[in-house]
Amino acid sequence: MALVVQKYGGTSVANMAKIENVAAKVIRTKEAGNQVVVVLSAMAGETDRLINLAHSAADHPDEREYDALISTGEQVTVSLLAMVLNKMGHPARSFLGFQVKILTDRAYKKARIVNIDTKAIKHELKKGTIVIVAGFQGVDPDNNVTTLGRGGSDTSAVALAAALHADVCDIFTDVDGVYTTDPNICSKARRLSKITYDEMLEMARLGAKVLQPRSVEMAKKYQVPLYVRSSFTDEGGTLVTKGDKDMEKEVVSGVTYDRDQAKITVVHVPDRPGIAARLFTPLAEHNIVVDMIIQNASIDGFTDLTFTASRKDLKEATRLVEEAGKDIGAQKVEVDQHVAKISIVGVGMVSHSGVAAKMFATLAREGINILMISTSDIKISCVVQAKYTELAVMVLHDAFELEKRA
Amino acid sequence: MALVVQKYGGTSVANMAKIENVAAKVIRTKEAGNQVVVVLSAMAGETDRLINLAHSAADHPDEREYDALISTGEQVTVSLLAMVLNKMGHPARSFLGFQVKILTDRAYKKARIVNIDTKAIKHELKKGTIVIVAGFQGVDPDNNVTTLGRGGSDTSAVALAAALHADVCDIFTDVDGVYTTDPNICSKARRLSKITYDEMLEMARLGAKVLQPRSVEMAKKYQVPLYVRSSFTDEGGTLVTKGDKDMEKEVVSGVTYDRDQAKITVVHVPDRPGIAARLFTPLAEHNIVVDMIIQNASIDGFTDLTFTASRKDLKEATRLVEEAGKDIGAQKVEVDQHVAKISIVGVGMVSHSGVAAKMFATLAREGINILMISTSDIKISCVVQAKYTELAVMVLHDAFELEKRA
Repeated sequence: MALVVQKYGGTSVANMAKIENVAAKVIRTKEAGNQVVVVLSAMAGETDRLINLAHSAADHPDEREYDALISTGEQVTVSLLAMVLNKMGHPARSFLGFQVKILTDRAYKKARIVNIDTKAIKHELKKGTIVIVAGFQGVDPDNNVTTLGRGGSDTSAVALAAALHADVCDIFTDVDGVYTTDPNICSKARRLSKITYDEMLEMARLGAKVLQPRSVEMAKKYQVPLYVRSSFTDEGGTLVTKGDKDMEKEVVSGVTYDRDQAKITVVHVPDRPGIAARLFTPLAEHNIVVDMIIQNASIDGFTDLTFTASRKDLKEATRLVEEAGKDIGAQKVEVDQHVAKISIVGVGMVSHSGVAAKMFATLAREGINILMISTSDIKISCVVQAKYTELAVMVLHDAFELEKRA
Repeated sequence: MALVVQKYGGTSVANMAKIENVAAKVIRTKEAGNQVVVVLSAMAGETDRLINLAHSAADHPDEREYDALISTGEQVTVSLLAMVLNKMGHPARSFLGFQVKILTDRAYKKARIVNIDTKAIKHELKKGTIVIVAGFQGVDPDNNVTTLGRGGSDTSAVALAAALHADVCDIFTDVDGVYTTDPNICSKARRLSKITYDEMLEMARLGAKVLQPRSVEMAKKYQVPLYVRSSFTDEGGTLVTKGDKDMEKEVVSGVTYDRDQAKITVVHVPDRPGIAARLFTPLAEHNIVVDMIIQNASIDGFTDLTFTASRKDLKEATRLVEEAGKDIGAQKVEVDQHVAKISIVGVGMVSHSGVAAKMFATLAREGINILMISTSDIKISCVVQAKYTELAVMVLHDAFELEKRA
């Protein structure tokens, strides 16, 4: 008998027909001889509705109250699923964050799970009950309701799977797995049957939307096998797990893109210690995440500093950098928001030479100019003009023969 | 400095504009030098929406899950009001049932409050925080969410007022107080400035919708002064309190009516011990509340038994009584659903003779036949044909001169 944690996203529980579909899947898993813990998101659109409600109450809603409000969406879906399962003769019981209890830190809107008390859940599982847990929510040490941030239900599911030593954590979503790239812009995109935590993590960070990076990090840390599957078909699926021999053959596993990028260049900066700190500390203080940072070689004691950030932060970032630029004697600040980041990801990359060269040559052949480059052991990212996004993805997908099964 | 508990019903928090109106009232109370605890219902219509959702999940939704679902409505309003108050510079904090905590028994859908832990609320009040508590909800000893039944927010407010030894419990609603009768059917209806717990209790039981009988019972038990007021105007209001000399002058305080009545007569029943038990036990077992019961004097060893029940229970009640009637040898069962109960209520009645006679004569003068009569120390009820409801209310209101200030 295995212990299975299944997480269903907002589109999978968007209405009563879909909740009944989830119930059928859960029952099938239970009747195959498993213990089942289900983690649910709110109905698709409900969290956004609640967020709008909060913003109609206040421009900057009190964060404690905000979390109390938006956590109601999951409370609705877990109780509805429990009703449906009970009606169908399968004892089921919903658990809210405080009932489990899922203890988090005190960081409203982006809380981190500190501990999960598994006693009540284990007690119900032993009785044969299907346990249904509200995703996205927890309570802090003073029993204030907290939420885990966007995509937090994935994190809830993985954390529960880790705490319960589950055999697998199924992530049911509206796509049937993880693809070599976005099928919407590259028709040759192929579903991967397996992928390592590290690759998945890079792909999630680099713009693939199927899983939240935090949940993948946690799955990697606690070695929870993740199985990304479609709520609407039993076909397909991608297993996210630790690397094995079989997987190491794939040099490049996927191509990702991120259009939410803006490039800021601080021109002609005196090259002396403390300059970077002076530029980036204010950004950090304003919670602006800086992605790639490139500093040119110094010429005559001056250098250019270029970095990328999310487009939504561009205005504030520019203001902060212009202020700092004046202090440190920079000539000017240049901004380009028509850029995108194209990346290739693969664990095999580290032991294969020529991968970067092949990427650059492929882009060059199409006349795509590379504005910035950043590399790690398992990914190479290039910032290019945004208009080349689709083209770059397609030619890289071809060049690394990703449509072929490895 | 007084401690004031204020309860706002669903129509008072139906949308953001109305919630801001509530915030303004709360702030005014606070700035007058009071400590304020606010109890809220769900937005008007929201609880019904959630109930419909539950019934779309299952014909007979699991009761535990039902309570978890429908309690979300109050979670939404309390957090929204807290956001608005915080935005306006008045520190406020919402509390859910488990956070207070409001401990109830295990009776889902109609739980009774067992204990309220006032520590956290008092701590916040001492800091000058406005405390906002979700009405209608609590938790049982195992932290399962429970709800208190229709109108449960009134009960939450009174229980909090009792536990906190509040100076007054304001019940804000969509009418500006308690009237001598329903102003919709009698234009001469007059708002009462004061009424006793006992009178209010009778009036609530007899069909006046402004307060739930349970909350009045609790207010009487703990001597919590209730002040029924309108959310939309500062005028008016009715104080519900224990009797004083001033109030004893009013022989009759109000006229109520209840159209949700059906009359069932079991004809020609052998008059022997155990007959009533055989008839009414099945009704009790099916949770059918029997209101008035009349047994005629026995003639030749046979009698007729007549009782009233809610119209919604009529079909099942008839079935049960016909079954029992066969067993005990009754001739037949007759049903009349075109009846209404008209009552006059007043604490002074007990010491004034002729009140009943005046009521009967007044009805007789209009040709209204009395089908059943039932009396207590502070009320007299007559069942009449439903078509006479308005007429009966108006002539009784006139006869007892209720339009005049006592």
